[in-house]
Amino acid sequence: MKYTPVNKRKIINDPVHGFIKIPSTFIYDIIEHPAFQRLRRIKQLGLTSYVYPGATHSRFQHALGAAHLMGMAIQNIRLKGLKITEKEAEAATIAILLHDIGHGPFSHALEQSIIENFSHEDVSRLLMDKLNEEFKGKLDLALKIFSNKYHKKFLHQLVSSQLDMDRLDYLKRDSFYTGVSEGVIGSDRIIKMLNVVDDNLVVEAKGIYSIEDFLIARRLMFWQVYLHKTVLAAENLVARVLQRAKYVAGHDNNLFAVNGLKYFFKNNITRKNLYSKKEDIISNFVNLDDNDIITSTKVWINHPDKVLSILSDNLINRKLPKIIMQDQPFAKNVIDRKIKESIRTHNWNDEDIGYFIFTGSISNKAYSELDDKIKILYNTGETRDIVDASDIFNVSVLSKIVKKYFLCYPGSLL
Amino acid sequence: MKYTPVNKRKIINDPVHGFIKIPSTFIYDIIEHPAFQRLRRIKQLGLTSYVYPGATHSRFQHALGAAHLMGMAIQNIRLKGLKITEKEAEAATIAILLHDIGHGPFSHALEQSIIENFSHEDVSRLLMDKLNEEFKGKLDLALKIFSNKYHKKFLHQLVSSQLDMDRLDYLKRDSFYTGVSEGVIGSDRIIKMLNVVDDNLVVEAKGIYSIEDFLIARRLMFWQVYLHKTVLAAENLVARVLQRAKYVAGHDNNLFAVNGLKYFFKNNITRKNLYSKKEDIISNFVNLDDNDIITSTKVWINHPDKVLSILSDNLINRKLPKIIMQDQPFAKNVIDRKIKESIRTHNWNDEDIGYFIFTGSISNKAYSELDDKIKILYNTGETRDIVDASDIFNVSVLSKIVKKYFLCYPGSLL
Amino acid sequence: MKYTPVNKRKIINDPVHGFIKIPSTFIYDIIEHPAFQRLRRIKQLGLTSYVYPGATHSRFQHALGAAHLMGMAIQNIRLKGLKITEKEAEAATIAILLHDIGHGPFSHALEQSIIENFSHEDVSRLLMDKLNEEFKGKLDLALKIFSNKYHKKFLHQLVSSQLDMDRLDYLKRDSFYTGVSEGVIGSDRIIKMLNVVDDNLVVEAKGIYSIEDFLIARRLMFWQVYLHKTVLAAENLVARVLQRAKYVAGHDNNLFAVNGLKYFFKNNITRKNLYSKKEDIISNFVNLDDNDIITSTKVWINHPDKVLSILSDNLINRKLPKIIMQDQPFAKNVIDRKIKESIRTHNWNDEDIGYFIFTGSISNKAYSELDDKIKILYNTGETRDIVDASDIFNVSVLSKIVKKYFLCYPGSLL
Amino acid sequence: MKYTPVNKRKIINDPVHGFIKIPSTFIYDIIEHPAFQRLRRIKQLGLTSYVYPGATHSRFQHALGAAHLMGMAIQNIRLKGLKITEKEAEAATIAILLHDIGHGPFSHALEQSIIENFSHEDVSRLLMDKLNEEFKGKLDLALKIFSNKYHKKFLHQLVSSQLDMDRLDYLKRDSFYTGVSEGVIGSDRIIKMLNVVDDNLVVEAKGIYSIEDFLIARRLMFWQVYLHKTVLAAENLVARVLQRAKYVAGHDNNLFAVNGLKYFFKNNITRKNLYSKKEDIISNFVNLDDNDIITSTKVWINHPDKVLSILSDNLINRKLPKIIMQDQPFAKNVIDRKIKESIRTHNWNDEDIGYFIFTGSISNKAYSELDDKIKILYNTGETRDIVDASDIFNVSVLSKIVKKYFLCYPGSLL
Repeated sequence: MKYTPVNKRKIINDPVHGFIKIPSTFIYDIIEHPAFQRLRRIKQLGLTSYVYPGATHSRFQHALGAAHLMGMAIQNIRLKGLKITEKEAEAATIAILLHDIGHGPFSHALEQSIIENFSHEDVSRLLMDKLNEEFKGKLDLALKIFSNKYHKKFLHQLVSSQLDMDRLDYLKRDSFYTGVSEGVIGSDRIIKMLNVVDDNLVVEAKGIYSIEDFLIARRLMFWQVYLHKTVLAAENLVARVLQRAKYVAGHDNNLFAVNGLKYFFKNNITRKNLYSKKEDIISNFVNLDDNDIITSTKVWINHPDKVLSILSDNLINRKLPKIIMQDQPFAKNVIDRKIKESIRTHNWNDEDIGYFIFTGSISNKAYSELDDKIKILYNTGETRDIVDASDIFNVSVLSKIVKKYFLCYPGSLL
Repeated sequence: MKYTPVNKRKIINDPVHGFIKIPSTFIYDIIEHPAFQRLRRIKQLGLTSYVYPGATHSRFQHALGAAHLMGMAIQNIRLKGLKITEKEAEAATIAILLHDIGHGPFSHALEQSIIENFSHEDVSRLLMDKLNEEFKGKLDLALKIFSNKYHKKFLHQLVSSQLDMDRLDYLKRDSFYTGVSEGVIGSDRIIKMLNVVDDNLVVEAKGIYSIEDFLIARRLMFWQVYLHKTVLAAENLVARVLQRAKYVAGHDNNLFAVNGLKYFFKNNITRKNLYSKKEDIISNFVNLDDNDIITSTKVWINHPDKVLSILSDNLINRKLPKIIMQDQPFAKNVIDRKIKESIRTHNWNDEDIGYFIFTGSISNKAYSELDDKIKILYNTGETRDIVDASDIFNVSVLSKIVKKYFLCYPGSLL
Repeated sequence: MKYTPVNKRKIINDPVHGFIKIPSTFIYDIIEHPAFQRLRRIKQLGLTSYVYPGATHSRFQHALGAAHLMGMAIQNIRLKGLKITEKEAEAATIAILLHDIGHGPFSHALEQSIIENFSHEDVSRLLMDKLNEEFKGKLDLALKIFSNKYHKKFLHQLVSSQLDMDRLDYLKRDSFYTGVSEGVIGSDRIIKMLNVVDDNLVVEAKGIYSIEDFLIARRLMFWQVYLHKTVLAAENLVARVLQRAKYVAGHDNNLFAVNGLKYFFKNNITRKNLYSKKEDIISNFVNLDDNDIITSTKVWINHPDKVLSILSDNLINRKLPKIIMQDQPFAKNVIDRKIKESIRTHNWNDEDIGYFIFTGSISNKAYSELDDKIKILYNTGETRDIVDASDIFNVSVLSKIVKKYFLCYPGSLL
Repeated sequence: MKYTPVNKRKIINDPVHGFIKIPSTFIYDIIEHPAFQRLRRIKQLGLTSYVYPGATHSRFQHALGAAHLMGMAIQNIRLKGLKITEKEAEAATIAILLHDIGHGPFSHALEQSIIENFSHEDVSRLLMDKLNEEFKGKLDLALKIFSNKYHKKFLHQLVSSQLDMDRLDYLKRDSFYTGVSEGVIGSDRIIKMLNVVDDNLVVEAKGIYSIEDFLIARRLMFWQVYLHKTVLAAENLVARVLQRAKYVAGHDNNLFAVNGLKYFFKNNITRKNLYSKKEDIISNFVNLDDNDIITSTKVWINHPDKVLSILSDNLINRKLPKIIMQDQPFAKNVIDRKIKESIRTHNWNDEDIGYFIFTGSISNKAYSELDDKIKILYNTGETRDIVDASDIFNVSVLSKIVKKYFLCYPGSLL
């Protein structure tokens, strides 16, 4: 008789990729770590669910999905005859798994408000180092790959480049959860077409149309989802709620907040003191997630500070600012008119008006010439940059920065 | 020239049903109401995402989806020649939209811990009355349909019966988000087959196999998802966290909690005082959502009460109790052995052991003979109960209650 | 530099399973063989596209899909700790690939008309032997597995049993192509749950609900698709076209037909002379496909034989007989009334009336107690038949034969 | 009691769009017409299933799908406030339903071989006129719309333009059936964004990214599917089989062929005699479908003409010519070398070599400046051509003709 029970927990059901197998015990340990479990509590797309209600998926799912694609990519590259050791495969998988570990609640909300002087990438790096300590150096190779210090460059490129497993997963996943069906990309086909030349990642020429489609689909997702004007309005609102709360916390010691938030309200962290305070930063940052922001904001609705109260109510009950977008910066007189109307209608003073009426800009480009390029491999063995290889794209159009300006103002104004 | 701009916000992109059109301005007003917006902050499947990471969808989406199916069902029934007025259609849509409005965080977590004496249905009813007041009686007909006091019974049956739009939406949606593909049901086909005889909802005979499949798919979702043993363990854990927090709140006035939670920690609401305190209950209950539970639990990890601290850490960092399930109740000696081991290992006292080692039972039946039956309509005009109409089911097997018993104990025990 | 081109033809894009990899060169040779390529020209579901226009998929696709699932099943069983050699894996894959190789055009149309005395299984067997000769015995093990003479019974069960890869593929594929979404089964989950005990295939207990769903989904597909009454009408019509053509061929040597058809028109093959004439049978049978029947039928529309002409026109232009179905056989007087009406309306004589008015029966059962049973494996190591293991099914209901009777008559009659 | 049976045949289950409702009895009559039913027997993508085995769908399905999208487009445009009468809606639906009615077997196989002097568009027009006669002028408005003689230009544009319902359906459908998932387009979103300005179809500015994605997805489908090099090889092969058969028919009166084929073998139809012979042409052409070509080709395998025999065997058993593609025409010496090798290996004479070794070219452009442009409508009421509106495209790149040259030669040569 033959019967071997298997640890079923090591297979995870993902609606996007199907069954995902956790490839090793060590990777399972990392997934179980509180720092990684925390990603369950951070939505991949922040407040995007205010526009696309289906988009409630977490960074946890995305990290697992990207790791799954890494496994597939490695398997395919091996089939092309390239040797990748088990150690390298595990390290690359860990690197992609942890690539977003330092993400704060609501994407960049904190970065745009209470911790202006460093980015989630900085925190990711601090956290990875800390995990590496805890795991006694077992993350050394993963960190080398992550920071592009390993000689097999393509492993880093799979983790972070213009055609990395991060993008392949998030485009497919965000398209699935938002219902924006035309964002679907041929990740399976692209992965099948990956190869390696001189330690660099390339795409075989047959895959060129899938790459074109990938670049256009990504562009569509940017304008249709990530930079959707209502999403922008919501993200700017949450940032202002936190800014004001930090301001109020300056004189109101009893402002409701969890310790993690209080720390960043009280301390001005800059890149300079980042490393000296890293223990504090990590322990506070890692405690924060979407729930703290929402719970606090709900409490702040009843705060005597009128600005904080209104902003909080607007955020929680989806009374979003109106937003208009255009290709040129807004003329001063247009903004001033809105401000005047607002002062008349709402009686704001000059200092506070900026919480309700503000401008900003966003930009995006489909492809960057400066970053790691997407290289196409021909049967002849020759490689070419996608912008040279494609019949339809050329550098000037594809890598042009598209910049848009927005003006937000209260919904009660016309 | 002809160009009429349309309010685009009235079309919502749903990954499950595609584009959902909000059918009227009044319904849009209801959706914008804070009581309804709050459903965005309550996960449809609570802690199920601990097993199926994709299942992060909200009750907000589900309510919109069920309302969308209601519109389709009404349109189809009209095509069969039955008259349904615009008023009735709107009221039925509102009734389904609001059917879960009283749901608390993490499904029944509160009901199983800090508010044991009334259910979310009671709260739903209180809330609907309150909304009706605010909207000056415009919900009268919706409430009549909801409470089955309207003569066109089938409208109520579309809202709440064994074949209602609630079930058609949640099975399809939960299957989509968990990735349990075999939970897919033929909701479109079932809706096409709906008809009305003597004011009651019936399914045309051609749809009988889709109904069989629907009943089996629902059963599969129960055992595979809703009553999955790891989900049960997590749900029992959150209930115990709240129980303990309520206990601790009895002597620790500084226990971190939002006001909504504090209210239920301090007050014992029973069915008897429910109506007399309804204003308080509503204002506190409606303020609560998943975020408050998670944020508080994270804070409680550092509480000096050892039981609360451990339970909270277990919940947040997914250190779930082990759980075994069987068809019979657990023998006393089995439980006692676990308790003895636990006391030896963890040093719990007799009072606290119940937070860590406990038994319970769950049950489910595929079909109830007592509730509104699913009736099949033949070409002859005759109708029959599905259990009589189906070749494969019969009353005894289909409406049999399947009961399972579970025993939870700390993961550190064998 | 490292660049290894790979033979891309060995990956096939399947809309149902995604990319399918041909696992070995020998299997690729079999796929390239004319006998296998012929399956491209035979629709999996015959005339079902008269009801579900999307269902135009071929037996070729299905065979590849089933072989793909075989590969997945073998990989999973190996992960459970069971050894399956490369030889065995290849042989099992070949066995499933060839399981339908003897299928004639339009499913069983020929069997029900011009070659009544043997079945497609007989032809499959003849053809496999012939291929084995051509490939010099390299199919020995595949044939052993196919005919259940290999000691590892589970390999045969994967090819042919109540839970074989054939069924897993066709249910998923037919559901996909017809658009009958509720026919979807959890083939991935079922395959993950497969295990082997004492050389027999079992399903781990966690998979029990997926098996229940699979049995009900299969039942739904039978009544909704495979035995759909309009499909039955069409299949009976094509059989009658061929019957009449054979009859006409008896006196009209110039009847248009390809040689393959002519052979079966002229020769009465029985099980007895099957083997003695096997060379002829194979060469003629293997030449036939759906195209020959359609092309010939179109020509026969203009044949002077009125019966053949009308039947052919009816088939080509989808003027299908009316069909009624009931649970009891049709009373003689009901049939006689139809016949009388028909004679009055159409002037048929007594001999020919049977081509236009006829009865028959179909039957199906969800599960057979007599065939290889589906066995559930518990954690204890114990196994139980699905009908004992399931809470909802029991032998009597599940293995009950459901028989339905049909009566076909010209559409011009009421 | 209320029970109204509905004619169920008027709802068709389509795996791509779900349930399709036939909107009127007259349209149902057209669908039942033999000329339309014939489209069931013509594959939408001809021999593409030699590369993508799933792509067996018929022109019948595509025509129904395009008609379904027409209904949705009209409903949406009406919601924008534009009046479209029931008559106009029915006529536009009929126009799209019949747009491909004149398509011969295997796409353009006949046009490239035995009927070189007119196109399927000519036949479509002849057939529509004929149907209009049969239906006593009830197609008048549909024909007016089809030939762009109706003042509401947008109705014609929905039938035939660079953003017509034909393209929206075939891209989605071909993507579904081939499994080329990145060909998916947002047809629902595009249809939602359609509007009409000055009787012309426009797309509201919010839809611009979906249009960009649509153009790139179409381009991808062209190179990945429609002009896939193996598909090209197969299509060129079938054309050569028919050319040779026509040549052989010149001296062999007994060549096996159905009458429809014989007619085109014997008669040289040109644009000039097209109308004078239209009755013959229609009756013969309409009789032909994919089945006749395949059945005949199978018979021709045994024909004494060696060229016909080999070409036929190659086609049936998928022994496709090798094909190489490049951006420049092939140099004469490259072709001559292949010819020399081939003569040495196969002993072909100079006349016949052209059946086995030949060159050709294909071209495609993503967007045409000359045809009906895709116009984007801004909130200001202004409209702009997509090439001006898009940040990423410009006329020069988007409307550039991409031309590729191919050389086919026997697989037995290197």
